[in-house]
Amino acid sequence: MSGTDAAQRLVRPGRPAWALAVHGGAKEIAADEEAANRDGCAAALAAGRAILERGGSALDAVEAAVRSLEDDPVFNAGRGSVRNAAGEVEMCAAIMSGIDLAVGAVTVVKGMRHPVSVARLLLGEHEILLAGEGAHDFAAHHGIELLASERPLFSAFGTARRSGHDTVGAVALDQDGNLAAATSTGGLAGTLPGRIGDSPLPGCGYYADNRLGAIALSGDGEAIARQCIAIRVIDNLDLTGPEAALEQALSKVAQLQGEAGAILIDRNGRIAWSHNSPHFAVGFATDACPDGRVRLGKDEA
Amino acid sequence: MSGTDAAQRLVRPGRPAWALAVHGGAKEIAADEEAANRDGCAAALAAGRAILERGGSALDAVEAAVRSLEDDPVFNAGRGSVRNAAGEVEMCAAIMSGIDLAVGAVTVVKGMRHPVSVARLLLGEHEILLAGEGAHDFAAHHGIELLASERPLFSAFGTARRSGHDTVGAVALDQDGNLAAATSTGGLAGTLPGRIGDSPLPGCGYYADNRLGAIALSGDGEAIARQCIAIRVIDNLDLTGPEAALEQALSKVAQLQGEAGAILIDRNGRIAWSHNSPHFAVGFATDACPDGRVRLGKDEA
Repeated sequence: MSGTDAAQRLVRPGRPAWALAVHGGAKEIAADEEAANRDGCAAALAAGRAILERGGSALDAVEAAVRSLEDDPVFNAGRGSVRNAAGEVEMCAAIMSGIDLAVGAVTVVKGMRHPVSVARLLLGEHEILLAGEGAHDFAAHHGIELLASERPLFSAFGTARRSGHDTVGAVALDQDGNLAAATSTGGLAGTLPGRIGDSPLPGCGYYADNRLGAIALSGDGEAIARQCIAIRVIDNLDLTGPEAALEQALSKVAQLQGEAGAILIDRNGRIAWSHNSPHFAVGFATDACPDGRVRLGKDEA
Repeated sequence: MSGTDAAQRLVRPGRPAWALAVHGGAKEIAADEEAANRDGCAAALAAGRAILERGGSALDAVEAAVRSLEDDPVFNAGRGSVRNAAGEVEMCAAIMSGIDLAVGAVTVVKGMRHPVSVARLLLGEHEILLAGEGAHDFAAHHGIELLASERPLFSAFGTARRSGHDTVGAVALDQDGNLAAATSTGGLAGTLPGRIGDSPLPGCGYYADNRLGAIALSGDGEAIARQCIAIRVIDNLDLTGPEAALEQALSKVAQLQGEAGAILIDRNGRIAWSHNSPHFAVGFATDACPDGRVRLGKDEA
C-alpha cells in the first residue's frame, strides 16, 4: 500500500520549508508491538525535527533520526541488532548527501553504538565504504567509542528472536533545499557471517541527489540490491511521479519474492512512502505539521 | 573514446550466436606494457571463447575469462593485486546471471587465488555479498584452496607500484541467449584497509539482465558507485542505444572528477565499449570473428 495521500495532506500547498521522513522497518507489527513502534518513530522524528526547525542540515537531521532509532531496541539496528548464524552481531549503516553525492557507509562492523555516525565520518574521505576491521580501525582513529564486548549493547535484545526486515532509515529536506538519506541495520537473523544486504550499498538501500530526491529502503536486502531499487526510483521520479516510481520498484522486488518498504522526499519536498510488506513503521513531518504523523501501514486514516 | 564502431564490424549483420567482451582496466598503458596487456586480454578471450563455442553458458565464460585475468600479474586482480595502506592485499569480485538476476560477490578477501570463483559459489545461496572472514569461511567450507600466506600469490607483484584503475571484467552472451557479467579487482594502492569500491556492488561495477544487457566497469570505484553507473547504462539501453547510454554514464563519472571504462553486450548481442581514461585494455569476439580483437584505447583502427 502507499501512504502518499496521507503524507501529502501535511505538505499542501507548495514546497515545505523543510521535510523529514523516518522508518523503523518493513515488517509485520503485532498488536502488542504497535505502541513501541509508534513511540520509536515519534522519537526519531523529534530528533530530526529539532535540527531542521532551527535551520540545520538534512545530513545532521537524518543522522540524528537514525541515531535515535539505533538507540531503541525495538528496531533492528544498533541496540536492537540481531545475531547471525555464528551468534554474532554485525551491523551496516550509510549516509548520503544530495549536495555532492558524497557517500559514507560501513558494513559488517561490530561493537559500535552508532554505526551511522561512523558512516558520517567517511563523508570527508575518498573512500565511501569500509568493511569490518578496516571500519573499526577508522572509527577508533577518529575517537569513536568502541565496545570491547557487545554485551552492554545487545544483552537483552541481540537474539535471533526476530526475523523481520526492520532495518531503519531517514530522509530529509532542509531549509537550504538540500536532501540527505541514511540507513542502519542490525543484520538478518541467522544469516552467513559477513553478509552484506542493501543497507550500505548506494543505489540499492538508499540514495540522495538534490536534483532528484532522497530515498531509504527496508526489506529483503538481497532482492532490493539485485534490483538496484533506490536509484531506479530516483531516476523515475520525473518520468512517473513518486507514487508510480515507488510502485514500479516494489513490483521488481516482488518479482524476486521479496518484501520491501521505502520512504521518499523529492526535490520539491513531496513525501511519499510505500510497502509490500504486511506493515511498515513510518513517520513524517514538515514545517506545516512539525509534530508529524506516525503510521504503521495498517490502513490508518 | 568509444569503440563501438570497431566492435560492431565484427557482429554485423544480425544477432551473433555468441558474444564475449573482456577488459583489463581503464588506465594508462605505457608503450612497454602494450604487449603484455594485449596478450592478457587475448588469453582471457580464448578462455571464454572455448566455452561459448561449444555451447557453454555465459556464466561459465565470464568466470573463465576473469580467472585468466586473475592469473596474469599484468592486471590488478588476483596475482596482480596491489597493497593497501596497511601493506595488505584485499580483493573483491562479483558475478551476475542475466537469467534470474542472481548475484554472487565477495569483498575485502585475502589469500584467494580466484575470488571470482568464490563469488560464483554464492549464486546458489540466499546471500549475495559476503565480506572478509565470512567470505573466507564460506570459501573454506566449499573446499576452495586458501593460501595461509599471500606470499606465493603476490611476492613479485603485490607492491604499490601501480596506481591505475586496472580492475578486470567480462560480459558474455551465450548460444541460449543468456547474458552474464563478472568483475575482479586487487584493490586501490595505498587505500584504507577494508575499502570497498564499485567492483563487488550490483548496479555499480556490473549488472546483467537477459531482458536488457550485461555490463562491467573499471575505473574510479568511488565515483562509479556514487553514480550507480552499471544500472543506469542498462536502464538507458532501450531509450538511447548503447553508445549514448555509455557516454551519458561516463559523463556522470567525469562530473565527480573520475575516470572509467565500460564493456557492454546488449540483449541483441551488440558489443560496445567506451572510456574516459587515457587507455582501456579490451578484447571482444563473436562467432563471426572467433579470434576476436584486442584494443588498448589508443586510436587503433
